Amino acid sequence: MGNFRRVPVGIVGASGYGGVQLVRLLMDHPEVELVYLGGDSSAGKPFAYIYPHLAHTVNLSVEAVDPELIAHRCEIVFLSVPNGLACQIAPKLLEKGCKVLDLSADYRFSNLATYTAWYGKERQDSAIAATAVYGLPEMFRDRIAEAELIGCPGCYPTASLLALSPLLKQGLIIPETAIIDAKSGTSGGGREAKINMLLAEADNSLAAYGVVRHRHTPEIEQICSELAGHEVTVQFTPHLIPMVRGILATVYATLRDPGLVRDDLITIYRAFYRNSPWVRICEPGIYPQTKWACGSNLCYIGIEVDPRTGRIIVMSAIDNLIKGQAGQAIQCMNIMMGWDETVGLPKLGFYP
Amino acid sequence: MGNFRRVPVGIVGASGYGGVQLVRLLMDHPEVELVYLGGDSSAGKPFAYIYPHLAHTVNLSVEAVDPELIAHRCEIVFLSVPNGLACQIAPKLLEKGCKVLDLSADYRFSNLATYTAWYGKERQDSAIAATAVYGLPEMFRDRIAEAELIGCPGCYPTASLLALSPLLKQGLIIPETAIIDAKSGTSGGGREAKINMLLAEADNSLAAYGVVRHRHTPEIEQICSELAGHEVTVQFTPHLIPMVRGILATVYATLRDPGLVRDDLITIYRAFYRNSPWVRICEPGIYPQTKWACGSNLCYIGIEVDPRTGRIIVMSAIDNLIKGQAGQAIQCMNIMMGWDETVGLPKLGFYP
Amino acid sequence: MGNFRRVPVGIVGASGYGGVQLVRLLMDHPEVELVYLGGDSSAGKPFAYIYPHLAHTVNLSVEAVDPELIAHRCEIVFLSVPNGLACQIAPKLLEKGCKVLDLSADYRFSNLATYTAWYGKERQDSAIAATAVYGLPEMFRDRIAEAELIGCPGCYPTASLLALSPLLKQGLIIPETAIIDAKSGTSGGGREAKINMLLAEADNSLAAYGVVRHRHTPEIEQICSELAGHEVTVQFTPHLIPMVRGILATVYATLRDPGLVRDDLITIYRAFYRNSPWVRICEPGIYPQTKWACGSNLCYIGIEVDPRTGRIIVMSAIDNLIKGQAGQAIQCMNIMMGWDETVGLPKLGFYP
Amino acid sequence: MGNFRRVPVGIVGASGYGGVQLVRLLMDHPEVELVYLGGDSSAGKPFAYIYPHLAHTVNLSVEAVDPELIAHRCEIVFLSVPNGLACQIAPKLLEKGCKVLDLSADYRFSNLATYTAWYGKERQDSAIAATAVYGLPEMFRDRIAEAELIGCPGCYPTASLLALSPLLKQGLIIPETAIIDAKSGTSGGGREAKINMLLAEADNSLAAYGVVRHRHTPEIEQICSELAGHEVTVQFTPHLIPMVRGILATVYATLRDPGLVRDDLITIYRAFYRNSPWVRICEPGIYPQTKWACGSNLCYIGIEVDPRTGRIIVMSAIDNLIKGQAGQAIQCMNIMMGWDETVGLPKLGFYP
Repeated sequence: MGNFRRVPVGIVGASGYGGVQLVRLLMDHPEVELVYLGGDSSAGKPFAYIYPHLAHTVNLSVEAVDPELIAHRCEIVFLSVPNGLACQIAPKLLEKGCKVLDLSADYRFSNLATYTAWYGKERQDSAIAATAVYGLPEMFRDRIAEAELIGCPGCYPTASLLALSPLLKQGLIIPETAIIDAKSGTSGGGREAKINMLLAEADNSLAAYGVVRHRHTPEIEQICSELAGHEVTVQFTPHLIPMVRGILATVYATLRDPGLVRDDLITIYRAFYRNSPWVRICEPGIYPQTKWACGSNLCYIGIEVDPRTGRIIVMSAIDNLIKGQAGQAIQCMNIMMGWDETVGLPKLGFYP
Repeated sequence: MGNFRRVPVGIVGASGYGGVQLVRLLMDHPEVELVYLGGDSSAGKPFAYIYPHLAHTVNLSVEAVDPELIAHRCEIVFLSVPNGLACQIAPKLLEKGCKVLDLSADYRFSNLATYTAWYGKERQDSAIAATAVYGLPEMFRDRIAEAELIGCPGCYPTASLLALSPLLKQGLIIPETAIIDAKSGTSGGGREAKINMLLAEADNSLAAYGVVRHRHTPEIEQICSELAGHEVTVQFTPHLIPMVRGILATVYATLRDPGLVRDDLITIYRAFYRNSPWVRICEPGIYPQTKWACGSNLCYIGIEVDPRTGRIIVMSAIDNLIKGQAGQAIQCMNIMMGWDETVGLPKLGFYP
Repeated sequence: MGNFRRVPVGIVGASGYGGVQLVRLLMDHPEVELVYLGGDSSAGKPFAYIYPHLAHTVNLSVEAVDPELIAHRCEIVFLSVPNGLACQIAPKLLEKGCKVLDLSADYRFSNLATYTAWYGKERQDSAIAATAVYGLPEMFRDRIAEAELIGCPGCYPTASLLALSPLLKQGLIIPETAIIDAKSGTSGGGREAKINMLLAEADNSLAAYGVVRHRHTPEIEQICSELAGHEVTVQFTPHLIPMVRGILATVYATLRDPGLVRDDLITIYRAFYRNSPWVRICEPGIYPQTKWACGSNLCYIGIEVDPRTGRIIVMSAIDNLIKGQAGQAIQCMNIMMGWDETVGLPKLGFYP
Repeated sequence: MGNFRRVPVGIVGASGYGGVQLVRLLMDHPEVELVYLGGDSSAGKPFAYIYPHLAHTVNLSVEAVDPELIAHRCEIVFLSVPNGLACQIAPKLLEKGCKVLDLSADYRFSNLATYTAWYGKERQDSAIAATAVYGLPEMFRDRIAEAELIGCPGCYPTASLLALSPLLKQGLIIPETAIIDAKSGTSGGGREAKINMLLAEADNSLAAYGVVRHRHTPEIEQICSELAGHEVTVQFTPHLIPMVRGILATVYATLRDPGLVRDDLITIYRAFYRNSPWVRICEPGIYPQTKWACGSNLCYIGIEVDPRTGRIIVMSAIDNLIKGQAGQAIQCMNIMMGWDETVGLPKLGFYP
């Protein structure tokens, strides 16, 4: 192996679900070495204090968040911190030459006015934000390869955009008819103690939330608009499902050409994703289950056309913590570093 | 109490989930006495042999299905049997003077051609089918009061139609824009051993099924068309949720008048359901959880309007086995018998 | 019905799971009228603000906790408040002539030294505590009938003691061999936001907790000792199960007479519980599922004997929120008031 | 890499949960190449026909079970077939020089009389059975290294024996006091359509089964007896838990030396498992959750001592499909082949 050297990477905000997934995946990644875990509230504690099951496997302690120090030790840094905090850390890391992958919403918007409108925070860093690339490799592989700063997509936008992109890019649907009815496991809500996320409340139950005002809406619309070439407004409704992991987005849209049949669309999707190793288009009549994706970085897409209504129904299933979060960030890292985009990422789900 | 007499009722097909709910509710109903449980496969066995938890509470045995005998003992008969079987039993019971409430699909269609097209069974009994009333009391209370034969709605159509009816009846939406994205617990699939319904397969997972071809579609469309006054086609997509009970229907439609706001719509729904004790319209900004309805005969409806898209989003939550099945059948029975429509039915859910 | 009058009852601490179950059950109880809901943190809010599904069904508001006022309006008061608070409220209510049923641990111990040792709180009210009766009707029906103050059993002690009592009372086992391996749904942990109770943490998982030091241990031992006629020490281990409701206690003990067989024991249990309408002894070879009990006040008991080891294994299943909490309190109230012990309590579980 | 060659392996009976886990793990194992999947009922179909999520990842088809052919292509064969079938296939494979790892019960018993007594099948192959090694590496690493035929342990025995072995081997407990109260997710029941395993039946519920007669009892006793040096009888009670994966065994036993405290025992366990990379002993006061183990080949062991009763309580948590089945078989293969025992096996659980 000669002078092979693993690239040192760090995670700021390792104690949440995104963080622990990053730890799990980066530990098994052959090209990198995880050398830093940061978090102010747990600083000084062994990581296994937060996640006891990792004792004797992950021997790192959580350290204070000092960008100077981080940059000194890490070439690549993942930020898994709350919205509004990433944009305070990233500039310092970039300045020191780190590549930064931000899992928060801070660098997802090319237009910070949209960010401010939906997230309620003023920002002064539009110059840096303008250099950020939206980390959806299936659309923006080339830009990611050139980027120093990635705004990793939200979990819902990942599932939604992978379902919608071929249709919008190729002008197959009337964009304003697009409705995304999305369903997520509760791990998407993070590792925070909230009454509505208790098992006793959320198990054996189901509800919509954030109807007409969920913050992933403008993120979806921004990319849809870019793909369509004009401003697009979509309907997005998330639901909380009594399960730990997984997102299913059921997407409805009216086809421009009512003569298109299911097999045509499947062919179109397969061609569109020909070079995307993490997208699987299901056989005709097969609809994806979220369980298929759980544990892998794959997105499964099922397609149906209703000749009675002229609509296409696209169902996309991902693991919200992997393709919807930590795995996709690593996929972006692979591309930024010139590695194969699949390296270090699981392609076989846990099933069952 | 003097010469008070409970009305003798029977259930054909008591061993499934619909049956056991009917048993539970009818046992506690103050106006009736459950005197007969029928089922060919379990004939001769105590009911508690099938459901051991009912030993010493339900002391009936399952008996063979002999319409003559049933009619001799029962004034009211619930049929909880497979599609295509109810239409062989009901005529004989009606002839003997029984009131019949059928929980299968056999008497839900005024036009048997639709039944045959979607259920693949030829029927010769259009005369009797023409006398059947669709058992959705919130729409057809008066007809139910006069009927001898009720075709009780499916679980999905109940949730869907309670959400859509005020909009269609009052011409508030463009009917062909209606999309119903429905989610159900697995008890809706019945008590049959199927691999995809195993806990190990269905838990911690989620998928759509029957996309563009689920048999509840024509049932929904039939009533929508009647309410709208012209032929209506809807998009209906059911999903299997990892929970036992409950249905949530998330309904999308484009408003004709983009000036209507959420509070207008809430007022309209409240007025529409003013005399419907089993429908609850949520406060503004509150969206129903299926857990709220579990154990009760209530339907909870939440309403949102998206000024950005001009759409209304209506969410309706029911217990699929109660308002979606056994409870609604009993509600119909109450109306047929001239009793208060709430008698014998639970109005407080199990929560949590 | 003449001059029939419902007895006015109140609940202090209505916002937790015990409280909402009491509300649900007392609303349907034919002998009482629920007139007061108390709670300092929610005082002034409609109860439906806490539990939106009860809007238009439960029209009470939460009021401040003023014992004088409560006693003025209620003849019977249920206390569903934290340990250490009940003993501050109960004396004032008793003084004013109320009957008090306390769901906390405050009045479960005849010897307050035990309470202090396990709950870490000093108490000065041993005189009042000495008047309290342990509210397990199957053992102490006569005392309950005479009592003004009931210390309602914990959920685990209820399941454990119903399994063990016939054996201890009749000297059938060697008491110190008794091991109780108990499993509970997470609603037993109450409606508090804790990370380990999140669905994302607790679902699809299982663990023991409080091993060798759970506070229900001395409560079980106190009653076991009384039944055995001498000091008894038991092994008690609770586990958290990924479900909302239900407790199963699996109890192991060595039989004194190795010649006893399963059918002997079933006969003995049936005789022991002959006058206990809420206990069901399963047929030979049938073991209770917690789901059977969910929604009812029943306790199901299954019995097995292992001739290879000389042990009896007793499994008891209850709904932790009903027979393990609110239902049992109402059962006690029925006995205190001279009503039938089954009145107003559900005997048919939700199943499935 | 030069003349590096992966060892060809095959799986007979790949369609069940054990099979699909073997496929997942063997696909990622760096020393082997999966070249054969066998199963008579699915012969001729692509494996992805059974598990659609593996389309384009696992490109093998299921083939008929022809031992001659299998031995021609595979050096190592895993048998994941029903009890009674493995003993018909294994001899032919061994004769042709294959190494065989059987996941059924056929080769777990050194004394076939025990097998016949508990499994009800007569066997004539005691000569071959006598060459089989019980595949629990933590006890029998040396024998496994020499073996050609491994009888892989059941899932419950794995969890139970890892908890009990240090105590029995070192004579720390009175063996006949050992009680194993075990809890398993429903995937342990396999991928068969059974009503009691439906989500609607098994979710939100809990029950014991196979009390005093579960077939894993003699398997546990056989190894306990060998470790203790005399015949040992244990009490074993399995329970079905509403989750997909995971086993927790809660083991109770009376210590011979009542002076031993928890920290002593933790030290003893750590020493005992010093060379066992797949066993983790928890810190004092920490009890393992099954979720910790899910997705990894680890067994987590928590230890508590009750000075009041003189008992030790040991809790062991595994993923029933990995350390309890497929992972352990691969661990055995690694040892048989002289590879590091951890190679190709996941050490980081999915968490959450």
